[in-house]
Amino acid sequence: MDTTVEQMNTFFEPKAVAVIGASRRTMKAGHVIFKNFVINQRRNLFKAKLYPVNPNEKSILGIPCYPSILDIKDEVDLVVIVVPAKIVPEVMKEAAKKGVKAAAIITSGFSEVGNHELEKEVTEIAKKSGIRVLGPNCLGVFDSKTGVDMLFLPETKTLTTGDEVVATPRPRAGPIAIVTQSGAFGAAALDYLTGKQMGVSKFVSFGNKADVTASEMLMYLLHDHLTQVILFYSESIDNGREFMEVARKVTCKKPIVALKVGRSEAGARAAASHTGSIAGSDEIYSSAFKQVGVLRANDLEEFFDMGKALAFQPPVSGNNVAIITDAGGPGIMCVDECVKQGLNVKKFSEETIAKYEELKKEGKIPRFATNYNPVDLTGSVTSEMFEDGIRILFEDPEVDGIIVLGLHHLPALQEDFVDRVAELRKKYNKSVVACDVGETEMALHIRSRFDKLGIPAYFSPEDAARGMACLVKYGIYLNKHGKFDHYMTAFMERKNR
Amino acid sequence: MDTTVEQMNTFFEPKAVAVIGASRRTMKAGHVIFKNFVINQRRNLFKAKLYPVNPNEKSILGIPCYPSILDIKDEVDLVVIVVPAKIVPEVMKEAAKKGVKAAAIITSGFSEVGNHELEKEVTEIAKKSGIRVLGPNCLGVFDSKTGVDMLFLPETKTLTTGDEVVATPRPRAGPIAIVTQSGAFGAAALDYLTGKQMGVSKFVSFGNKADVTASEMLMYLLHDHLTQVILFYSESIDNGREFMEVARKVTCKKPIVALKVGRSEAGARAAASHTGSIAGSDEIYSSAFKQVGVLRANDLEEFFDMGKALAFQPPVSGNNVAIITDAGGPGIMCVDECVKQGLNVKKFSEETIAKYEELKKEGKIPRFATNYNPVDLTGSVTSEMFEDGIRILFEDPEVDGIIVLGLHHLPALQEDFVDRVAELRKKYNKSVVACDVGETEMALHIRSRFDKLGIPAYFSPEDAARGMACLVKYGIYLNKHGKFDHYMTAFMERKNR
Repeated sequence: MDTTVEQMNTFFEPKAVAVIGASRRTMKAGHVIFKNFVINQRRNLFKAKLYPVNPNEKSILGIPCYPSILDIKDEVDLVVIVVPAKIVPEVMKEAAKKGVKAAAIITSGFSEVGNHELEKEVTEIAKKSGIRVLGPNCLGVFDSKTGVDMLFLPETKTLTTGDEVVATPRPRAGPIAIVTQSGAFGAAALDYLTGKQMGVSKFVSFGNKADVTASEMLMYLLHDHLTQVILFYSESIDNGREFMEVARKVTCKKPIVALKVGRSEAGARAAASHTGSIAGSDEIYSSAFKQVGVLRANDLEEFFDMGKALAFQPPVSGNNVAIITDAGGPGIMCVDECVKQGLNVKKFSEETIAKYEELKKEGKIPRFATNYNPVDLTGSVTSEMFEDGIRILFEDPEVDGIIVLGLHHLPALQEDFVDRVAELRKKYNKSVVACDVGETEMALHIRSRFDKLGIPAYFSPEDAARGMACLVKYGIYLNKHGKFDHYMTAFMERKNR
Repeated sequence: MDTTVEQMNTFFEPKAVAVIGASRRTMKAGHVIFKNFVINQRRNLFKAKLYPVNPNEKSILGIPCYPSILDIKDEVDLVVIVVPAKIVPEVMKEAAKKGVKAAAIITSGFSEVGNHELEKEVTEIAKKSGIRVLGPNCLGVFDSKTGVDMLFLPETKTLTTGDEVVATPRPRAGPIAIVTQSGAFGAAALDYLTGKQMGVSKFVSFGNKADVTASEMLMYLLHDHLTQVILFYSESIDNGREFMEVARKVTCKKPIVALKVGRSEAGARAAASHTGSIAGSDEIYSSAFKQVGVLRANDLEEFFDMGKALAFQPPVSGNNVAIITDAGGPGIMCVDECVKQGLNVKKFSEETIAKYEELKKEGKIPRFATNYNPVDLTGSVTSEMFEDGIRILFEDPEVDGIIVLGLHHLPALQEDFVDRVAELRKKYNKSVVACDVGETEMALHIRSRFDKLGIPAYFSPEDAARGMACLVKYGIYLNKHGKFDHYMTAFMERKNR
């Protein structure tokens, strides 16, 4: 498999890139893509060599253009192909002659619209010459470290008011990799993660999967030390056995969160007409994922929420969860979702209850606080009370993970409760997820502060419960396969770097 | 029931309010509440008379203070009580002597902490004197029109940086009423709706429900012409028969969306210790809600999403849904959720398919567009194509509702597609919900533009599907009870006002 890793690496860390079909016309994909590379070169982010190829142009953005890849003197290891579908075989033949190693074919108009013959022709050229092909009909690659950016979706757009606004942002560097079959979904994911201040290591959209498979990309990401969590969007998996084998290896070291769509019959029919793929029975996917430790998300929001939990916090090896809150109602909502997710929200031990009673006697938490589970600190809560209240949960060996529902609205609660919780978390190293509800200034601030301190914060009690459930499911899987301690060591090393 | 409506009205449109326990100390609930009224009086929003009552103060915020309500010469119809629990009976006796009609008891420390005797004492005074009691242990009332604001949660807070930020905002006037058992949840709801630019007509938190019940409030809101949708949060419903009877009446004219928590055993236990209520079997609630047309939300997010759909769009009387998109993947996600919700995403009629084929021939939509269901306009989509593509769905008599997934990332799609869709919608009057995925500038702009034009926009394809499902469920209920046309007429009249 080391060959695969090396081959895939060319898409992300090429030495020399030729953009075949680069264009001067600003609305064309060939322009946007070439410009991405040029800008990243100027930013000193993209450091490899860059060549525009187009027989009809002399220069693009001030860079001399080559009529064919064969006119380039130096070696080229990666080509990005943006020419019309029918010319792709010819261009591929030239790339083969040039000794290119990898080709990302952005162009659409292949098997997804019934042109199976054309796609076959391309893959046969590739097979013969040893070129690995990503796509066709894909968005290609975005790499936040090397500056490879094949996205033809413009970073900004101009509104009718004349305002230029961010349209398809490129997220900052971070621990999350995105592997997606759908380009449109991929763009949406980049937009979502950027807006939510989450960083991305690598992004790859593989479209029709004529050659490079999802499994190969997953294998590659296993070896990529910048990637810690893999978000995997799929409409179909062709070689199930290969996928299972690879996923099993990956999930022992890195979590994979899967959004597998086409669950319903009507959805599967839509998937078939989208990328020409046959979806297969949904139950089979669910049970296969479970078997190899792939965590399945139920919808778009959960997909990102799970990624966030796993990027921020270590997994949890047991399913006893404690909830601490200042808001009774949201506490109940959280319990309901925990139970639905198979988590255990059990009554605390007598020792823990006694500790809370002691705090009440000392006046350190409200006399009417509930000290079963959830702990409800009530409307009289202060930041100190949150700190004292949560410490007991960190100390309780029967509590595996903690959900903090700190609704900021109550008069005496100050923002510093967030820092207090985060400080304690560092000391005890027990996984915590948080929630504050609201969409105005202070709610946004509290959630962002939690995030910055490494505690994933969610906008609803149910989302927080689902975030915790994901940590528990992954922790139990790792534990069952004897990989928990190893993962934890690696996780802690990363966090301390 | 007209007596009830009149009695409830005193909480929202009093002639003279006394705040018993008004305080000069800024951190006290008695200060925040009194100040709310004073500010709204200065804004010329609160137009009734206002009296602070506190034997230990001479004046508060420049307004002379009364030692007791009995010292006020003029009539007082509403008292807001913020004194310590043990003094509440005494204060209530004086209110009775004064001939007060309604009392909102904000104070906690009653049955929710086991003080059943004290609560009973208060309700007996109320029963004898005919005073209607809201609470105790509640947030009381917020009315965006009359300026009644009993929320003791400060509108802003000061961060450690010295910045003053919005903490518990009061939303602008709008069609949504909130009826909530949990005060904390209520505050969170106000925060959420304000941030999402949704307006609120009335807000009421009734806490321990010692006297005034949820059913009475629902009955009142049926008669409130400013309320068009009721969001109802509940942990328990005591008098099921009364509730069913009232809900049946209300839902024929106004939708009720219910978030009933304590679904799980552990959740029900938490509910019991929160407001001392017994939750009862969850299935019974579900089937009772269904019977009387109450729409049940599964979690916090769905609760608000459903409210938004019903506030913006008319209900849909059939369950055939069409999806139109420029993004294959999100289209499939939407189909999956529609199917899960019981909606029918069936293949279009031959006539409709032929119309799409015609558009393709004319070059008005991409040659490779999919014209089954979903309609996938592909990555070459333009604003004109969205307009031409969706018109066919408006014209198709077999399509009951339309979901527009307009992901803005594609190069040739401009923001004006939103306006084009909204224009057509006006003409055809078929219900539409929309979605764009992303959290940066253009995504936020597109969703907000849809919202402003009356089409509820969601941030995920699944949320959009759930929004549509809610319109369909309500439409089918109304239809079944012969109330659909009547509702539609009233809905259209409101929109055209």
